[in-house]
Amino acid sequence: MRVEIWSDIACPWCYVGKARFEKALAAFPHRDEVEVVHRSFELDPGRAQGDVEPVLTMLTRKYGMSEAQAQAGEENLGAQAAAEGLEYRTRGRDHGNTFDLHRLLHFAKERGRQDELLQLLYRANFAEERSLFTEGDERLVELAAEAGLDAGAARAVLADPAAYADDVRADEREAARLGANGVPFFVLDRAYGVSGAQPAEVFAQALTRAWDARPPLAHVDAGDAGACGPDGCAVPRS
Amino acid sequence: MRVEIWSDIACPWCYVGKARFEKALAAFPHRDEVEVVHRSFELDPGRAQGDVEPVLTMLTRKYGMSEAQAQAGEENLGAQAAAEGLEYRTRGRDHGNTFDLHRLLHFAKERGRQDELLQLLYRANFAEERSLFTEGDERLVELAAEAGLDAGAARAVLADPAAYADDVRADEREAARLGANGVPFFVLDRAYGVSGAQPAEVFAQALTRAWDARPPLAHVDAGDAGACGPDGCAVPRS
Repeated sequence: MRVEIWSDIACPWCYVGKARFEKALAAFPHRDEVEVVHRSFELDPGRAQGDVEPVLTMLTRKYGMSEAQAQAGEENLGAQAAAEGLEYRTRGRDHGNTFDLHRLLHFAKERGRQDELLQLLYRANFAEERSLFTEGDERLVELAAEAGLDAGAARAVLADPAAYADDVRADEREAARLGANGVPFFVLDRAYGVSGAQPAEVFAQALTRAWDARPPLAHVDAGDAGACGPDGCAVPRS
Repeated sequence: MRVEIWSDIACPWCYVGKARFEKALAAFPHRDEVEVVHRSFELDPGRAQGDVEPVLTMLTRKYGMSEAQAQAGEENLGAQAAAEGLEYRTRGRDHGNTFDLHRLLHFAKERGRQDELLQLLYRANFAEERSLFTEGDERLVELAAEAGLDAGAARAVLADPAAYADDVRADEREAARLGANGVPFFVLDRAYGVSGAQPAEVFAQALTRAWDARPPLAHVDAGDAGACGPDGCAVPRS
């Protein structure tokens, strides 16, 4: 079974939801047969690269919250994160464009290091004092290397704005096609969609439901073709 | 869309079928949104590691063919391969256990180099004079390095019989569950199965059919949960 998770590094509920989903997955009897794939979703695609502002400023400016409301929202998210054993800095975080982060995650996927990098990016954005957005590419290269990727190759990906850009956009088109308006958005075997950072029990039920519902294959009947089996290789009658 | 291809390196129709499928895929309008995954299938799982014999000997001994029949079969396969632009040695090839090749392919998958290695293994087995089965691990390490993998890491995988063994077996269990009796076996989005090295036109039709039939997701209705979207991050009402 395959679970695709659309999310953004700048999305606190994605950070929390990933932990809740992983708790359910760890207890799922068929967990070894579940493959998890990260998919790209940008919460703020219109923001220019390099346009960075504090999260609290963004919240008050963009959504018209008072500073106290914005801070209370962050405190609530911090408490939800803590309940999942995650660190969360409720003050001093930055907000910025995440397109390059998603490009780098697609590069990491190709190299089998996607989940390692995703975890490090979440941690860097939500738990660490250093900003993920103001130190330029070298900070990301450092995280890529920590995830087991080649630093030079990661640097080259970041330096080329076209690298993996189509993969990010394809994920975003697919999210729209599947009806996702927000993230995290979980898709199980392309059959069931789950929206939001649901409690682990909801993910556990969805995993069981999707597992039990896997349909039998429709075998395309296209006539004899060459094939090999335990009794040797058969040549088609023509 | 995702296409999984169950196959064995020792399977001539898998070698031919892969080329036919790729021809159809290259002409498919949504080819950039198709992900192809190799899945393991052993044609001769009971054969001991290191038990190597010439293909023609195996065919006469195991299936009771005459030498002329076995050779004619190989000539036919050679002609089918040539029609797809593939080299195929109809004499002097070896047959052996492929479990370690599949383990190595799973390692390559984790490192984003699976298709590169698969192509090199097919080529080594069907087109090259050197045997894939009699030169020990170093021959495979060489091919892994050519596929872009780290030679030391590939050597370590081959030296540890447990490495990726569960992945190979999981693929084989899944093939059985999906009703595959032989290979190549193509599964499109876990919805359509296509058996054998079908002509490219059959693969083209199957790709179109599977693409058009992608069902809408069933959204699991689990109540409000924290999520972020273009309008900010919503906290669930509880």
